[in-house]
Amino acid sequence: MTGPVGIVAGRGQLPKRLAARLVETGQTGVVAALPGTGTDGFAGLPVIAARYEKLGRLFADLRGHAVTRIVLAGAIERPELDLRALDLTTLRAAPRLLRAFRRGDDGLLRVVIGLFEKAGFAVVGAHAFLPDLTLPPGAAGRHRPAPADLADIARADEILGALGPVDLGQAAVVAGGLCLGLETIQGTDALLGFVAETGERYRRGARGVLVKRPKQAQDLRVDMPVIGPGTVAASARAGLAGIAVAADAVMVVDAAETIAAADAAGLFLWAMAGS
Amino acid sequence: MTGPVGIVAGRGQLPKRLAARLVETGQTGVVAALPGTGTDGFAGLPVIAARYEKLGRLFADLRGHAVTRIVLAGAIERPELDLRALDLTTLRAAPRLLRAFRRGDDGLLRVVIGLFEKAGFAVVGAHAFLPDLTLPPGAAGRHRPAPADLADIARADEILGALGPVDLGQAAVVAGGLCLGLETIQGTDALLGFVAETGERYRRGARGVLVKRPKQAQDLRVDMPVIGPGTVAASARAGLAGIAVAADAVMVVDAAETIAAADAAGLFLWAMAGS
Repeated sequence: MTGPVGIVAGRGQLPKRLAARLVETGQTGVVAALPGTGTDGFAGLPVIAARYEKLGRLFADLRGHAVTRIVLAGAIERPELDLRALDLTTLRAAPRLLRAFRRGDDGLLRVVIGLFEKAGFAVVGAHAFLPDLTLPPGAAGRHRPAPADLADIARADEILGALGPVDLGQAAVVAGGLCLGLETIQGTDALLGFVAETGERYRRGARGVLVKRPKQAQDLRVDMPVIGPGTVAASARAGLAGIAVAADAVMVVDAAETIAAADAAGLFLWAMAGS
Repeated sequence: MTGPVGIVAGRGQLPKRLAARLVETGQTGVVAALPGTGTDGFAGLPVIAARYEKLGRLFADLRGHAVTRIVLAGAIERPELDLRALDLTTLRAAPRLLRAFRRGDDGLLRVVIGLFEKAGFAVVGAHAFLPDLTLPPGAAGRHRPAPADLADIARADEILGALGPVDLGQAAVVAGGLCLGLETIQGTDALLGFVAETGERYRRGARGVLVKRPKQAQDLRVDMPVIGPGTVAASARAGLAGIAVAADAVMVVDAAETIAAADAAGLFLWAMAGS
């Protein structure tokens, strides 16, 4: 595993942290900045402008920099495409891309990964370079789940496991053995808002837990579940006792701030082994 | 199947409709009115007062009326028990009842059914006497699901099926193939409220469907999923194209009014065969 790493960069801090880590560890890299991504803050790595319409050009540019491994990192907006600008590579992939676009985000990412792989690149996850993006098993902060919380965590994990075969099941809230919410396409914050609004009279004395983990078919190289300080705040508003995530498989944005927020709010932040 | 039917009656119209049907069809019956249930409106059937604390007395009274089949019908509130009034039969069942009470409603109903069966009664569902409580397969109103709606119905049904083994999965909302909500302990109206509040930007041009069906382990004799005019109104507020229910297995409260509301709101009301 040598040679420069291609960072296909969306928005946010992740591609920048990745660039900094490469430089810190003596590795080389090239940044392909997607539309809407600035060109600054990449630790001095060369930056090329990438367009969705010109995947053939992007592949050639990356090869020109001797890139064999790429990382897709950062937030990607639904692209506004200029159909007249499509190059041959994008045009050939267009039917597959459009079908996947209609089916949903997961399918689209799988097609994009497939295109990079077919062009000869290995697709690697950002966490391969930034192991501190995820949590090792155990308590990440000062607080720990009580036995009743561990039972709620196990129940939520069981429910999420059942949803794997239908490509759902990234997060659930359980209190006192009762399921108070299941994450759908609206995401974790919407789930926690629902629990805050509707869950109170079903707690039966329990506070409840949020459990978040990858879906069964989720490709962690490009689509890792994420929590951050906002997840802690929303969990506290929902009255929960804490948050459990799959160890080594859920990205913690601003880990220090997230753990500090959990400590301050009295919530545990627990990483489940082998989920 | 002869002899009088014992109607163990909670609140609402269902036990009264059941009594009327028995009388209309020349059958005999006895009403055991639970606390909070009035004694009027039972089509002239004899009414005995039932107390949770005195199950032994209730069983004896029913046997005194030559009852061999009972129907649990109507809404039952969480009972306020006078522990000093427990008779021997209730006292013996108390540990099981209390454990089930803590676990949740499903378990409690299973224990109650078990007590009646152990006392020699057959427990029958209200829909055995009132077949028009449920819908036969097909469209119940003027509107029919479009092919895209049928695809959303199939997707929701698939998701609910996956939740069966973990004792969840009574209702789901799917639009354009994306799951916008899964029913949890808060019920169908809370699910539809969540979709109304959060679902708009995920529709991708589709309106979406509510699918409701029994959970895998649900005992339809005493705990049938229910829809009614309120479900239609909440589905309309959530912007859905219609409602699909399992044929012969979901109770429609005020069927004529429910169908009229769906017709007026432009929603289909579709009963799925063999779900």
